Amino acid sequence: MSVKKSTSKKKTPAKKTPVKKSAKPAAAKKSTKLKGNMLIAQSGGPTMVINQSLVGAILEAKKHPEITSIYGSLHGIQGILNEEFINLKKETVKTLEDIAQTPSSALGSVRKKPAPEDCAKLFDVMKKYNIRYFFYIGGNDSAETAHIVNEEAKKAEYELHCFHIPKTIDNDLRENDHTPGFASGARFVACAFMGDNLDNRALPGVKVNVVMGRHAGFLTAASALARVHEGDGPHLIYLPERPFSMEKFADDVKKVYKKNGRCVIAVSEGIADKDGTSVAAALTSEVEVDSHGNVQLSGSGALGDRLSDYIKNKLHISRVRADTFGYLQRSFPGVASEVDMKEARAVGAFAVKTAVHSDVDGSIAIRRKAGKKYQSFFERVPLSSVAKETRHMPDAWINKAGNDVNKAFLDYVKPLVGKLPTIGAFKAVRVPKAK
Amino acid sequence: MSVKKSTSKKKTPAKKTPVKKSAKPAAAKKSTKLKGNMLIAQSGGPTMVINQSLVGAILEAKKHPEITSIYGSLHGIQGILNEEFINLKKETVKTLEDIAQTPSSALGSVRKKPAPEDCAKLFDVMKKYNIRYFFYIGGNDSAETAHIVNEEAKKAEYELHCFHIPKTIDNDLRENDHTPGFASGARFVACAFMGDNLDNRALPGVKVNVVMGRHAGFLTAASALARVHEGDGPHLIYLPERPFSMEKFADDVKKVYKKNGRCVIAVSEGIADKDGTSVAAALTSEVEVDSHGNVQLSGSGALGDRLSDYIKNKLHISRVRADTFGYLQRSFPGVASEVDMKEARAVGAFAVKTAVHSDVDGSIAIRRKAGKKYQSFFERVPLSSVAKETRHMPDAWINKAGNDVNKAFLDYVKPLVGKLPTIGAFKAVRVPKAK
Repeated sequence: MSVKKSTSKKKTPAKKTPVKKSAKPAAAKKSTKLKGNMLIAQSGGPTMVINQSLVGAILEAKKHPEITSIYGSLHGIQGILNEEFINLKKETVKTLEDIAQTPSSALGSVRKKPAPEDCAKLFDVMKKYNIRYFFYIGGNDSAETAHIVNEEAKKAEYELHCFHIPKTIDNDLRENDHTPGFASGARFVACAFMGDNLDNRALPGVKVNVVMGRHAGFLTAASALARVHEGDGPHLIYLPERPFSMEKFADDVKKVYKKNGRCVIAVSEGIADKDGTSVAAALTSEVEVDSHGNVQLSGSGALGDRLSDYIKNKLHISRVRADTFGYLQRSFPGVASEVDMKEARAVGAFAVKTAVHSDVDGSIAIRRKAGKKYQSFFERVPLSSVAKETRHMPDAWINKAGNDVNKAFLDYVKPLVGKLPTIGAFKAVRVPKAK
Repeated sequence: MSVKKSTSKKKTPAKKTPVKKSAKPAAAKKSTKLKGNMLIAQSGGPTMVINQSLVGAILEAKKHPEITSIYGSLHGIQGILNEEFINLKKETVKTLEDIAQTPSSALGSVRKKPAPEDCAKLFDVMKKYNIRYFFYIGGNDSAETAHIVNEEAKKAEYELHCFHIPKTIDNDLRENDHTPGFASGARFVACAFMGDNLDNRALPGVKVNVVMGRHAGFLTAASALARVHEGDGPHLIYLPERPFSMEKFADDVKKVYKKNGRCVIAVSEGIADKDGTSVAAALTSEVEVDSHGNVQLSGSGALGDRLSDYIKNKLHISRVRADTFGYLQRSFPGVASEVDMKEARAVGAFAVKTAVHSDVDGSIAIRRKAGKKYQSFFERVPLSSVAKETRHMPDAWINKAGNDVNKAFLDYVKPLVGKLPTIGAFKAVRVPKAK
């Protein structure tokens, strides 16, 4: 991975606030850097490497005299509203390095979109603590929050360098080739399917595995990495990008089962029917919705159980099982991808560098260099370009039948996930039948 | 780990078959070893290290001229009935070493108790292929099958050295201090709870995690290893060894939630009410039962969902989630325990050595040496002593309230599981509130 520092501003024009312009003329700005305290927070679903970004940002911030104190807000913007800050300069490098290796959000997280009444409070607090650098690590909803904070800062004529640092196992952030957290989640999913495929080969039947991903199928698609030997599952992959039909599903399973005597299936928790109705949400009597409008899909086995019951009853196959990988996909320690850890660390540091070196707001996007060897670089992009809306799996990576992914996706995902465990297989020379 | 070779016979008297006695007098037996082919198979639920035992047995068998060919039966005794054997001498050492590192049962598995009509067939086949050494890797049900095969061999006056090699993630095999597969399953469960505890700390609520274990709570109890820092979950642990009450469960959760603002719970899939009725099985309309009489509990999220719904409705806590760890607990690659891998390999080799060196049948039990430093050794025990019935968590390892385990259990399990991933935590010095 290489990092583009100087060119990033040129490529994507910095979105300077009116406040900035009036407070500091462009010419003066280059030599006089904004001085004040830094506040960093984490938001949305945790990942295995979100703490790498946190630590990357803290260690970088320590190098810059413009940043006086480094505060961590507990549980995202809720911590700002409650004035619950910890002093991150009091942590040793050893502690920071341990935290970096630790999954989940060490500062705590939150799923909260600031309501209009919250916004005034946010700036009262920022003023009181002289916060001039604000970093919010999260996905598209967190980018939206950072965007709102940034807009409110402008309205309040409060000089703030506001940055979003990307993370999401869903990999659905716009502008990015991929997002920190995705590769490690994908590595977990690939390993899980490797093991589960072997389990299903040993005791054949139909196995449904439900994978995270609210709107985008990237994580579910990563199950395809588990195929090592001929006949390996997953044999079918269903993504939110294609309408899901129970009848078509049963037909697909029937064909695979007839051919192989077994069938391993990857299903995204986000699958929806042709009208866009979530299959999982339709199974729940009380639908939970967060302040960003997201429906709760994880933390229940209902979708997997529904699909396995359907197959059992429709196809009369006796051994049908379902597992829902759940929160382990984003929190299991010790399986993070090397590339993901490095990039997550570097993107945190890059955001701080960019914030100090005159860009006033934005998000950091991860891009991929053209060429055979995998290399990535970072660029500053406007907050509005990643906030709210999500991106999806490119159509060209999904097969025509809508039940698998192709080589283009595998070429994309392999370098991110890295080397997977060795899966041995017997040559299996049959003993001739005795008479 | 050290291995007791010569003393094992003395401690547990070898159960010699009448056939043996008549065919080979005791005095003659010592110098004349039985010559013939070896058949090895795997049975029951796979584990992460069951292939270590398989490879340990194969590599050991290659050293003994008494063993002519080494055959692997596909899918346990079903492979014998179908005469589906592979020639294991045709596999390279590289392949065998790769297989050893690979989770699940490389020869395929089966859940089948031989019916009376199967038994005659089994011996017809064994005779045809001149099988004189038979090894069956599995749990208590597989030991029962090995016991039946052995008894049938006697009846048929067929000279066979029949051995059971232990494995089960449930850790419920009698005679054994612990069983191969358990420590790796326990390692997965401990890591899973480590990550999930952090996830729940970041986004607080109630989290129910369902862990495998039909009758014994060892694997669920291993979740206690996840506690590293103060306040870490699991905060409550429910085992099949104690009657489960929904009301008591809700009371426990209420107390923990009130104190910590969150609650992580480990629940065994095998929990049963005071009348012994399985809570999970009671949720299913069609109960699946195998030929050993085992009710299917895994491969469904129903128990977790039932418990989380109950808490949500009873305690009116909004964020309640459930995950069922499912088959990943026994199949996830790359997390196996070092001790487990070594012991699983050695116990396979020990069974072959014992079979060749005059013991005619039995199972190999893993014992623990007294003393501070962990050391294990092996002993031959009669097949009848491990077949069918299972063992449970000692009462002394469970707390009085029946919702946790104690230090005695942790002292027992820690050396088996080995070093767990580092979990960092901030010192978290609070920033004084600004005025």
